[in-house]
Amino acid sequence: MIVVFTGGTGGTKLVQGLRHVVRPEELTVIVNTGDDLEWWGLHVSPDVDSVLYGLADLLSKERGWGVDGDSFRCLERMKELGEASWFSLGDLDLATHLTRTAMLRAGKTLSEATAELAEKLRTRARVLPMSDDRVSTMLETARGTLSFQEYFVRERHQVEVQAVRFEGAEQARPAPGVIDSIERASAIVFAPSNPVTSIGPILAIPGIRDALRRSAAPVVAVSPIVGGAAVSGPAAALMRMMGWPSTIAGVAKAYEDFLDVLVVDEADTAEAISIQQSAFSQQRAKAGGQSTIHHVPSAGVRLFATNTIMSSADDKRDLAAFVLDCATAQTARA
Amino acid sequence: MIVVFTGGTGGTKLVQGLRHVVRPEELTVIVNTGDDLEWWGLHVSPDVDSVLYGLADLLSKERGWGVDGDSFRCLERMKELGEASWFSLGDLDLATHLTRTAMLRAGKTLSEATAELAEKLRTRARVLPMSDDRVSTMLETARGTLSFQEYFVRERHQVEVQAVRFEGAEQARPAPGVIDSIERASAIVFAPSNPVTSIGPILAIPGIRDALRRSAAPVVAVSPIVGGAAVSGPAAALMRMMGWPSTIAGVAKAYEDFLDVLVVDEADTAEAISIQQSAFSQQRAKAGGQSTIHHVPSAGVRLFATNTIMSSADDKRDLAAFVLDCATAQTARA
Repeated sequence: MIVVFTGGTGGTKLVQGLRHVVRPEELTVIVNTGDDLEWWGLHVSPDVDSVLYGLADLLSKERGWGVDGDSFRCLERMKELGEASWFSLGDLDLATHLTRTAMLRAGKTLSEATAELAEKLRTRARVLPMSDDRVSTMLETARGTLSFQEYFVRERHQVEVQAVRFEGAEQARPAPGVIDSIERASAIVFAPSNPVTSIGPILAIPGIRDALRRSAAPVVAVSPIVGGAAVSGPAAALMRMMGWPSTIAGVAKAYEDFLDVLVVDEADTAEAISIQQSAFSQQRAKAGGQSTIHHVPSAGVRLFATNTIMSSADDKRDLAAFVLDCATAQTARA
Repeated sequence: MIVVFTGGTGGTKLVQGLRHVVRPEELTVIVNTGDDLEWWGLHVSPDVDSVLYGLADLLSKERGWGVDGDSFRCLERMKELGEASWFSLGDLDLATHLTRTAMLRAGKTLSEATAELAEKLRTRARVLPMSDDRVSTMLETARGTLSFQEYFVRERHQVEVQAVRFEGAEQARPAPGVIDSIERASAIVFAPSNPVTSIGPILAIPGIRDALRRSAAPVVAVSPIVGGAAVSGPAAALMRMMGWPSTIAGVAKAYEDFLDVLVVDEADTAEAISIQQSAFSQQRAKAGGQSTIHHVPSAGVRLFATNTIMSSADDKRDLAAFVLDCATAQTARA
């Protein structure tokens, strides 16, 4: 069983690739819900939806979110009625939110609703929201406290962030199946999602990080940072805000307590080599009893470079296969 | 101030006509909500929506309900997701239901939500739901107890009805403005709606029928029955179920305790004359101390005939003007 941790857009591409290199039934996808929002009275789970649509081959390729070939007539009408319209829900997409919201109002949990939607959409892979409890990613910014979607969509992440917190995370429990699937995993994959606001909320839920630390399965992450910048979105700026370098070293830092392998882009080969060399000197320094500590956030992590930019279906498949090869190699090593 | 009682489709046409013969600001429309339903988790008020769309010139002419030029992509998707799809909500129409539902969940009453929607849609005329309390028209049928929409839309009213009841009506209060507008009306109009299931629920709310009986304003109804049959829908069958004739006499019977004038179609001129003649013989019989009572459901009602089939905008306007002329004539007479 392969367990994947992911946010929306970027991570979904790797999930799509994985679905083609292993049987979908062998995939469990644990998805961020810190971005969930109540919109027009509906419960919208943007990252869960991207994963569901991605697995069902419904995801819009141009937009990277929502349903392929969707229209936005209801949205246009909402705008005419003077309702909020900065968050776009398509007419086809609406069916998902209506269905989910009705399920939740009928007393189902988010993971039950997600499982039913996955079944209806025939994803075959298992999709788990990180928690059935409400966790809200909130950002302290120059324009006050914003929810993630206010920051990301409404403000197009063009506002300085001073702090991030995951409201409700401390009281939240992992959704049923999350801890269990980590414990039974043959490999654990972190998709190239934003470590701060896509993976951060998942890791903030008590018990998940511990389960990852305990896990004997190889943990492989794909860096969302290429050449010192995020492939898309505000990952680099948010990582700097966290005090991490906005480089592959920062990604390794975010996951340092459980990560075995970091897959980086070929563009970062030089930096990867330098990290591994300094890890080596660090180990030597330790062995020699010297106190000089180089800035090596995660000395135990092995780095592998490949193409991580997923422009085509082949790219997704190739990267997914590479990630699983890394996991196999790590297992063999252990 | 002209007060109109109406259901959806048929009645809305007269409302549209009235809007063109008086200033919309002089119109108060009291609308049946016994057909309201919770659909896909949204509060849908079909008759209120028909009136709002009719007044806003958004009503689909072909369908007689919903928004002109609407699409049904969300509905198609709901069907694919295995959700109920026998009640059609268009993509543009959805915006109304989403907005209303969000207002209701935020604690607004149905009449507040309706007033806000009317304002957003610039109807100019005042639209009042009959009550802010939930009243549900339920039908006992050969296929068990059905809600009105289950009977009307899902079963296409092709099922025998044994009884109609208005669940919640006894505890319901008229919406704010309903009694007051009846009391201040210069004329009260009953649109050619189904007397049993469109007007029936309104009259079942304690206080409304009494206010109509007390009113000094002329009360003019337009018959939804033409040539012994309903212009559309199941009015005739439901009237027979109620023990009323499914003729203009039955319509007069439904409103007998407050009706002054019944406007009937030219096709019913002969029957109108016969009703008035027998009313005359009944009065004569009474005067002569005889006990023979003819079947005259509403001896005090005056009948006027005109074209009541509203196929064009001109038809609507002409009938509306005729109705108001009848009201004026009645006022002059009193």
